[in-house]
Amino acid sequence: MPTNQPELPDQVRRTDLRVIRSGTTAIDQGHTMTIGSLPLERGGVLPDVEIRYRTWGTLDETGHNAVLVLHALTGDSNAAGDGGWWEPLIGPGRAIDTDRYFVISSDIIGGCSGSTGPTSIDPRTGETYAMHFPIVTIGDMVNAQRRLIERLGVTSLVAVGGSIGGYQALEWATRHPDLVSATISIAASGRLRPFGIATHSEIGRRAIMADPDWREGDYARFGVFPASGLAIARMAAMLTYQGREIMEERFGRSPASRPSPYAPFGGTYDVEGYLHHQGQSLVQRFDANSYLYLTRAMDLYDLGGEQGDDHWLRQIAAPLLLVGIRSDWLYPPEEVRVLAAQAIALGRDAAYLELDSPHGHDAFLKEWTALGGMLQRFLDRVRPGEEREGGMIAQ
Amino acid sequence: MPTNQPELPDQVRRTDLRVIRSGTTAIDQGHTMTIGSLPLERGGVLPDVEIRYRTWGTLDETGHNAVLVLHALTGDSNAAGDGGWWEPLIGPGRAIDTDRYFVISSDIIGGCSGSTGPTSIDPRTGETYAMHFPIVTIGDMVNAQRRLIERLGVTSLVAVGGSIGGYQALEWATRHPDLVSATISIAASGRLRPFGIATHSEIGRRAIMADPDWREGDYARFGVFPASGLAIARMAAMLTYQGREIMEERFGRSPASRPSPYAPFGGTYDVEGYLHHQGQSLVQRFDANSYLYLTRAMDLYDLGGEQGDDHWLRQIAAPLLLVGIRSDWLYPPEEVRVLAAQAIALGRDAAYLELDSPHGHDAFLKEWTALGGMLQRFLDRVRPGEEREGGMIAQ
Repeated sequence: MPTNQPELPDQVRRTDLRVIRSGTTAIDQGHTMTIGSLPLERGGVLPDVEIRYRTWGTLDETGHNAVLVLHALTGDSNAAGDGGWWEPLIGPGRAIDTDRYFVISSDIIGGCSGSTGPTSIDPRTGETYAMHFPIVTIGDMVNAQRRLIERLGVTSLVAVGGSIGGYQALEWATRHPDLVSATISIAASGRLRPFGIATHSEIGRRAIMADPDWREGDYARFGVFPASGLAIARMAAMLTYQGREIMEERFGRSPASRPSPYAPFGGTYDVEGYLHHQGQSLVQRFDANSYLYLTRAMDLYDLGGEQGDDHWLRQIAAPLLLVGIRSDWLYPPEEVRVLAAQAIALGRDAAYLELDSPHGHDAFLKEWTALGGMLQRFLDRVRPGEEREGGMIAQ
Repeated sequence: MPTNQPELPDQVRRTDLRVIRSGTTAIDQGHTMTIGSLPLERGGVLPDVEIRYRTWGTLDETGHNAVLVLHALTGDSNAAGDGGWWEPLIGPGRAIDTDRYFVISSDIIGGCSGSTGPTSIDPRTGETYAMHFPIVTIGDMVNAQRRLIERLGVTSLVAVGGSIGGYQALEWATRHPDLVSATISIAASGRLRPFGIATHSEIGRRAIMADPDWREGDYARFGVFPASGLAIARMAAMLTYQGREIMEERFGRSPASRPSPYAPFGGTYDVEGYLHHQGQSLVQRFDANSYLYLTRAMDLYDLGGEQGDDHWLRQIAAPLLLVGIRSDWLYPPEEVRVLAAQAIALGRDAAYLELDSPHGHDAFLKEWTALGGMLQRFLDRVRPGEEREGGMIAQ
């Protein structure tokens, strides 16, 4: 898909981004912007932050027609175009219509696809950050995004994303209401509960840190990689992205239908072969330390923080759509529904919709027709970039 | 509690059993019986099998008043007495009344507490089995138990257990109806579903096998132990034993309340500290290869096998009580209820009861009052050891 880029400010340089760990160098349509030093919520400063991003469509004169698309944990800014993770939803005439909207997607800080993260060089030492990278939060990610979009000339945006991207959308809505024209948060509630922290995040972190090739995070310096630990982390997390229902439907108790890199032990069930495959896939494209930092950012997110949910929900000044997924194991739909009810009770222009899907948490990366319809109807109602009467649109 | 042992047959010798991996030697009240070579369901023969067991109460003259108590995955035959895992349920005047019943509990083969398993010496090579131990099944475990109880003079028994012990109870009821006077299977359905195989078993096996100290199972020969991998395996399994509800209640999003052996990373949540503690506890008392074999035996169990559930449920000749747990994540209560309904539809004397507990799968090791009441009422009805009219008792 041809990109129609706005004029770029000075900070932006086009870069050929290397695809992490693939051993090959791919030409990418992304840009990298230097946004300066970023004070962090949990203390300290991240110096000389770079943000990789991509855009589609054209920013209008007022800077009002932006849609910021926020990626999931191991995703990146390649949201649209060939192979984009939301490609069916973004493009001319699609739910997020690039003929009408200026679509931006940026890599979150702490990740490994181009924005500053543990694989970056710490300018103060000249060494790779590795585990010297500071703890970053959803708030830090969004603060970095704010600098990016302001420098692109955006004055108002729709924030939309799923899972950790849904957290970022909620962070935009509650902490940056001055710039938000609407918010869509999918498959995310106000915080991860202990069962989710444990199953999604901590089991995986333990597996990575137990891998002798992790070397306290310094694997790059030793020319090794904790592939075994990262693969197990991915397997555990995939269980929380898929869930009981779809696993039953897809695998039952059938024997493995694909080759596994692991020796069979009393046979191999299909669900095991699937997990093995998912684990092997991630280690080809994702950094282990980034995995630690991003899962921790997910755990730490708490919409209400010290001041409580109500305080922050009251800050919301634009329409909010919360989408739950019937079979979501990580963020059960009732938690998302309760959050919507809380916002409505506080007089916010909020709505809850549920994806009736067996695909679990990952349904927001699969249910194109149903999700596209929800997004399109909501965007048609809130009309980002067009004049609205007052700050709120009646339901 | 004083034990009242029956006269022991020649095969039995009293042994001082070492407590696995604790570094100390404890005097135990158990016995070890040699039951000869055991043909295995999946092929091959396990030679010179030894079974460690304990008994409480007295076997009556007819050999009819036996209750065989079947332990959970990392449990052992120390079911009753001080520190016994079902101590509140077994004893004089308790639900399983040792004044009335002759209670037997034996260590399953494949385990590591005294019966033949991967830590045993293979008599054909003089070396520890390690991963040369054959794949054993629930059926093999029960065949070994049958030899044990027949040599003890038992002619009829109540089989009772939870989780993998519940599988063994079902195996007794369907494959050995000639010896069964009643069956109680708790927190077990006819088979593990793919989400359970993956979350409970396979994540853990991958973590153990990824530990460099596993050494293809030969860690004992190298004087090391895959403690790190086994700890992670335990953490993953504990999630399936506890579940969302009790984790929410116990831990919420609170910071860790106990010291952790792992360095904090952006803090430590209480649920994480709990998992770390559980992991560290298991590696003090359990063998890693046994963990591989026993989890695989759980995965492989399939009540119906090739001939189907109905065929095997029709073999049941004695009253059957199935107990589900409201909050059980590993064996959701609806699966247990459906199995009971299936047995009832086939004319079996079966009943379903549900423990209304937030404690998840592990509730059968915690809900003493409710579970004790269920067991006592059921045993009072079936009256093991007393004359019954016909083979079945009406509900």
